[in-house]
Amino acid sequence: MAKKNAFYAQSGGVTAVINASACGLIETARKHKEQIGKVYAGRNGIIGALTEDLIDTGKESTTAIAALRHTPSGAFGSCRFKLKGLEENKAQYERLIEVFKAHNIGYFFYNGGGDSADTCLKVSQLAEKMGYPIQAIHVPKTVDNDLPITDCCPGFGSVAKYVAVSVREASFDVASMAKTSTKVFVVEVMGRHAGWIAAAGGLASDEKCEIPIVILFPEIPFEQKKFLARVDAMVKKHGYCSVVVSEGVKGEDGKFLSDQGLRDAFGHAQLGGAAPVVANMVKEALGYKFHWAVADYLQRAARHIASKTDVEQAYALGKAAVELALKGNNAVMPTIDRVSDKPYKWKIGMAQLKNVANVEKMMPRNFITADGFGITDKCRAYLTPLIKGEDYPPYKDGLPQYVRLKNVAVAKKLREFKL
Amino acid sequence: MAKKNAFYAQSGGVTAVINASACGLIETARKHKEQIGKVYAGRNGIIGALTEDLIDTGKESTTAIAALRHTPSGAFGSCRFKLKGLEENKAQYERLIEVFKAHNIGYFFYNGGGDSADTCLKVSQLAEKMGYPIQAIHVPKTVDNDLPITDCCPGFGSVAKYVAVSVREASFDVASMAKTSTKVFVVEVMGRHAGWIAAAGGLASDEKCEIPIVILFPEIPFEQKKFLARVDAMVKKHGYCSVVVSEGVKGEDGKFLSDQGLRDAFGHAQLGGAAPVVANMVKEALGYKFHWAVADYLQRAARHIASKTDVEQAYALGKAAVELALKGNNAVMPTIDRVSDKPYKWKIGMAQLKNVANVEKMMPRNFITADGFGITDKCRAYLTPLIKGEDYPPYKDGLPQYVRLKNVAVAKKLREFKL
Repeated sequence: MAKKNAFYAQSGGVTAVINASACGLIETARKHKEQIGKVYAGRNGIIGALTEDLIDTGKESTTAIAALRHTPSGAFGSCRFKLKGLEENKAQYERLIEVFKAHNIGYFFYNGGGDSADTCLKVSQLAEKMGYPIQAIHVPKTVDNDLPITDCCPGFGSVAKYVAVSVREASFDVASMAKTSTKVFVVEVMGRHAGWIAAAGGLASDEKCEIPIVILFPEIPFEQKKFLARVDAMVKKHGYCSVVVSEGVKGEDGKFLSDQGLRDAFGHAQLGGAAPVVANMVKEALGYKFHWAVADYLQRAARHIASKTDVEQAYALGKAAVELALKGNNAVMPTIDRVSDKPYKWKIGMAQLKNVANVEKMMPRNFITADGFGITDKCRAYLTPLIKGEDYPPYKDGLPQYVRLKNVAVAKKLREFKL
Repeated sequence: MAKKNAFYAQSGGVTAVINASACGLIETARKHKEQIGKVYAGRNGIIGALTEDLIDTGKESTTAIAALRHTPSGAFGSCRFKLKGLEENKAQYERLIEVFKAHNIGYFFYNGGGDSADTCLKVSQLAEKMGYPIQAIHVPKTVDNDLPITDCCPGFGSVAKYVAVSVREASFDVASMAKTSTKVFVVEVMGRHAGWIAAAGGLASDEKCEIPIVILFPEIPFEQKKFLARVDAMVKKHGYCSVVVSEGVKGEDGKFLSDQGLRDAFGHAQLGGAAPVVANMVKEALGYKFHWAVADYLQRAARHIASKTDVEQAYALGKAAVELALKGNNAVMPTIDRVSDKPYKWKIGMAQLKNVANVEKMMPRNFITADGFGITDKCRAYLTPLIKGEDYPPYKDGLPQYVRLKNVAVAKKLREFKL
């Protein structure tokens, strides 16, 4: 195999561990210099390839690359930029190939979710057609945990851990205050389409540490009356109640709960969250004092409480991507294959991108209890191993030491390209 | 000194480390059985004393008491119940003394903020007057960090660490996305009167890791135009910006930012937060894509990222409370006295409650930069040691193992008392 350079890009919403995949990928590539020359990264994701804004990761020290393993966010920058069908976006796909050619890139590693898997597949197809074959390997990443075939997606386990830990902690707090003050605590978590993250809130309660938790899943249409009755019953029984609401919960009218037509004093539309809406409902109907939180980016950036399992899998998938490429694979994605629940064992597998692209893995209905407000034992057995283990970053003066790369640009060879 | 029992109660909003004070207090009392008999705790704070609902902490194992050190929330329950002036609330103060007498209680340990310090002082005064002297010792606790004399208040350092870490992590996230997506991230933190917690957000940025942060302090009246200009300048220079807004920020009209007269589609008043208000302003005036979070209870319950300094001080103050009592002190509070900033050294001191009660320590103006949006080096020198060190709780299956006590009730001896 002739020696070629590699291109790596981060795509979509970043996570606490996407850089761990970058770390695994770059460290592994560095061990195979006879086959892989430079590893270039796209500045701000695929946009960096289109604009020929490449970063030479070879300029980063071994220490800096190693530190990616414990650094959240996307070290090279990511973007929300979807390349659609080959016909509509032909010029862009062709530009990609042109840039790859100009920089002797033979490996395309794309680290993202469902959309990226689709782009990755198309790049490989078009490259072939254009007579400049590229080995395109997709590295899975998404806190939404909605990629098919792989048992789970890097990024999810750490958000799940953050949510489970935070719900447990806040529930302890509310329990202490409930006698004379707050009785209901509502926390809003990510997950616009699937309730994987909301489900993780259910882990806060277990046999040894029972906590009254009501979960609102995007999969279950919100019924106000039923919800309020459940919260009321919990407060009457336990003295307090925690509510985990997914940002994606919709009412029976099909509209997002968070989109309740809020207006400020001047009549301007206001973008609110689902948590305050739910909390206000509780107050109005039941009169209980409430508190609410919206975790937003804090949850997906929370490297300080990342799941060790998640970090290890993210790293392993980055490493596997290079190994699959070196074995000659194309249009594939390394996957996590679960071998057993107890003890938890997993290995790396491989999926064809044509089976990954544009398939969304929803939460099975039997992961949600019949009443729609909790998680089943099946769900618990699936989730528990994913939050297992801690993997603390190094600290100095009380703060985590996250790396910032130099991100040195590679000299351009082509004409400018307008996005 | 005749052997007497002790009474301990937790008051007001709980924290990540108030139980560490309980731990220090109970462990120390257990070492002095010749002077201190039982340690009773008030179930749900001072209400437990008024209703004679006492918990016998002697029924808890050594292991359970030790685990309080790493358990957030108030293990015996807390309450928001303010005993006001002796004249208005005479019956209640007298009832307290009656309960103390009935259970041979000679030590009153009250673990709370400014209001509790006042109650503690009054109990000691009235007891003296009624001929049943009680040694009343106040143990400081408040995330608001607003008690006088003591250098800092247990609970604050851990919230400060949570905020500093979270702002750093979320800022890394936004920086990765800013090219095509979110450019402004707003996080709302606690602090209705003083900006201590908001100030901690400033620690996220330091010499080695510069981050564009705009802080909105409750001490500085909010000027929309000036704020928007600052955010715009930050985004133009750095590509993104993080905003830390205190829940207590008020506009020039003296009204809370969070109280902007939000109405739902039916015209019902809605309780929103300051973060969405600020975020919507940015969107409307500058057009930048934003995300916002409200940390609420997550910040003060976050034992998983507690400051080691804070935990040690909380424990030391609980221990010192007992030691001060055994030395015959009354109507006092153990304090943290700062010996030096670099290296950080502190020792336990003592304040008279009459100098603590009803005095609120505000943030000095010279802790806030002249423009009102940042922290000064003086502030940084004060805050940095308080977030230093990590003190992780034990984990099992990915979740922190927090203790729940048995909280066995002591048999009642008195008639019922209506609150």
